[in-house]
Amino acid sequence: MDQRLSFVTLAVDDVARSRAFYVDGLGWTATVDVPGEVLMIQVGAHVVLSLWDRAHFEAEVGGTTSRDGIPPVTLAHNVAARDEVDSVLATARAAGAGTVTGGTDREWGGYTGYFSDPDGFRWEIAWNPGPIEEIVLP
Amino acid sequence: MDQRLSFVTLAVDDVARSRAFYVDGLGWTATVDVPGEVLMIQVGAHVVLSLWDRAHFEAEVGGTTSRDGIPPVTLAHNVAARDEVDSVLATARAAGAGTVTGGTDREWGGYTGYFSDPDGFRWEIAWNPGPIEEIVLP
Repeated sequence: MDQRLSFVTLAVDDVARSRAFYVDGLGWTATVDVPGEVLMIQVGAHVVLSLWDRAHFEAEVGGTTSRDGIPPVTLAHNVAARDEVDSVLATARAAGAGTVTGGTDREWGGYTGYFSDPDGFRWEIAWNPGPIEEIVLP
Repeated sequence: MDQRLSFVTLAVDDVARSRAFYVDGLGWTATVDVPGEVLMIQVGAHVVLSLWDRAHFEAEVGGTTSRDGIPPVTLAHNVAARDEVDSVLATARAAGAGTVTGGTDREWGGYTGYFSDPDGFRWEIAWNPGPIEEIVLP
């Protein structure tokens, strides 16, 4: 099995609310937009983020965990400069992010902060001063 | 905020168990491997999958949802041919995947199946016969 991630699909309660946040708020462009069902956003050359209505998600995948707590997954958006962490977090706050944790120096040398989308999924905005082996980010 | 996903981080109960599945079982190569703490695997040109010990995850991100149910996220691995769906699912089964849902024809024209990793995260193995707008997958 090749090492390849093609889609990340999040179960969301209200696709219109997700659209208001990601498209209207963050200014992202949807590649596929089916009201009430799914919103697909290209987030890499060969990677798509899919925000899928929870009822559809559960019909295909199965019943999801309780929403009491933070989903056990984070998505990260790496930036090229330390200052960008704060500006992206400000953009997320203006877009209506529910929770925004300000930029924090991390023990590994980076500077990161988090915001939550309308369903509580956490995005980490990260500046990493060093290389991660041979992987170039962002 | 640019449309960019750099990392997907999953909270896992036992990094060694995740390593046994992803590295020994699926044959993937870790870029960063810190026993008991984190395993990072490159899954795209600029995308990393991080399997992070739950205690560390929760210390930084917050308390996660109950594990009673399926995490509200799926990761997909798209393949170029319909037959590959079945062969990848067989690989996952041999690697010890807990749940494997055989390939199924989907109403949108594709053929997909799911397997679960040791923490219950679902990977969808997908063959899509048509293009998704301009996005080339895999």
